[in-house]
Amino acid sequence: MEETKKTTIVLFSGDYDKAMAAYIIANGAAAYDHEVTIFHTFWGLNALRKEESVKLTSPKGFMEKMFGGMMPRGADRMGLSKMNFAGMGQKMIKQVMRKHNAVPLPKLIEMAQEQEVKLVACTMTMDLLGLQKAELLDGIEYAGVAAYLGDAEQGRVNLFI
Amino acid sequence: MEETKKTTIVLFSGDYDKAMAAYIIANGAAAYDHEVTIFHTFWGLNALRKEESVKLTSPKGFMEKMFGGMMPRGADRMGLSKMNFAGMGQKMIKQVMRKHNAVPLPKLIEMAQEQEVKLVACTMTMDLLGLQKAELLDGIEYAGVAAYLGDAEQGRVNLFI
Amino acid sequence: MEETKKTTIVLFSGDYDKAMAAYIIANGAAAYDHEVTIFHTFWGLNALRKEESVKLTSPKGFMEKMFGGMMPRGADRMGLSKMNFAGMGQKMIKQVMRKHNAVPLPKLIEMAQEQEVKLVACTMTMDLLGLQKAELLDGIEYAGVAAYLGDAEQGRVNLFI
Repeated sequence: MEETKKTTIVLFSGDYDKAMAAYIIANGAAAYDHEVTIFHTFWGLNALRKEESVKLTSPKGFMEKMFGGMMPRGADRMGLSKMNFAGMGQKMIKQVMRKHNAVPLPKLIEMAQEQEVKLVACTMTMDLLGLQKAELLDGIEYAGVAAYLGDAEQGRVNLFI
Repeated sequence: MEETKKTTIVLFSGDYDKAMAAYIIANGAAAYDHEVTIFHTFWGLNALRKEESVKLTSPKGFMEKMFGGMMPRGADRMGLSKMNFAGMGQKMIKQVMRKHNAVPLPKLIEMAQEQEVKLVACTMTMDLLGLQKAELLDGIEYAGVAAYLGDAEQGRVNLFI
Repeated sequence: MEETKKTTIVLFSGDYDKAMAAYIIANGAAAYDHEVTIFHTFWGLNALRKEESVKLTSPKGFMEKMFGGMMPRGADRMGLSKMNFAGMGQKMIKQVMRKHNAVPLPKLIEMAQEQEVKLVACTMTMDLLGLQKAELLDGIEYAGVAAYLGDAEQGRVNLFI
């Protein structure tokens, strides 16, 4: 019996371009029948935020509100790792992406969910940054470093992005 | 029969120091008989640009010209990921590298080609950033995410830099 | 006989948050009986610097003094990869970490040493940046890329952070 191939990506970065790379690799691997997990930690959690403001049942503290307000709400609002120029570079990238029919990040995330890529939010960082489940996309999982290692140690393609 | 060892690096970053790390690991692995691939995507493509201006057969659009003009032409012009200080840090690093007889990036790339490290340019990003084959180093390969995964899933040392 | 699991991390980054991620994964893997190595190279070496000023036996050159002066001395002084705001972001993160009883980086490094995670300083970068053994934490190892590859090629979880 052949071993199922596994690809496990830690998405640490909150940059639009890096998250795109992560999701393109993930979608590619899923298309080749890998079991794929993206473990979103630190700024990478922003890719999983809902775009709309969410009414929370438990109130946030001051610091959590600060972080929540400063961090981009959702994949579409994330900046570039290079040549961001206060958002200009990101607009340019999106424009060339449209021109070349490249798939924008929010759509890449949808495709990953359709292909059953396991999207995981790191619960430790959620605590730190004060993000609550209601603020994140539906259909994702919640776990910590132990679950990540359980996935990672069975695969060969392990990336930290 | 022993399995050939494979090392596959995604070079996403356009930083001089990160590209150096990628090529030092790649050259080391090649010296230990690994089959090594560096898959250059996004800003990492800049490491493969020729230094001289190239006459193109098909004209570039406005956005492609913008990106082409803003991005560094070739490995020698890339900046540092930290303490770049508008290019100062890069000059300092090069100076200490000369003093310590460390190999500069363009030479590391040459060495990799001599050791038959497979240098791949990501065709999807070339499209996005408007880079044409004539602008990139000779002797490299062109491929997409499927080819990357084909290499990566057979190896153990898989890095995203 | 079951293969010992190996996790090998290249810590290239000098950012507080990225180093935290590296050490959290390393400590987690060690707790699950992986043999874990963190290979500190380039700016990642700063995590291993002693906090106090060290009297050196061999004097440093001008460039080495410059680098030494500009780089943070020890894990506790490293900045954030995102939203650092000239050190403000780092203070905020530390404050929320205290509130949530998260373990600060210097303590994560101590824990790693207690769990026998192998902490390695890249000798090539030490030369370049002019860092001497007396300036780095006690109980660490010194090695180059060959030793890194020796560890990495036997494991599955290989990350570049």
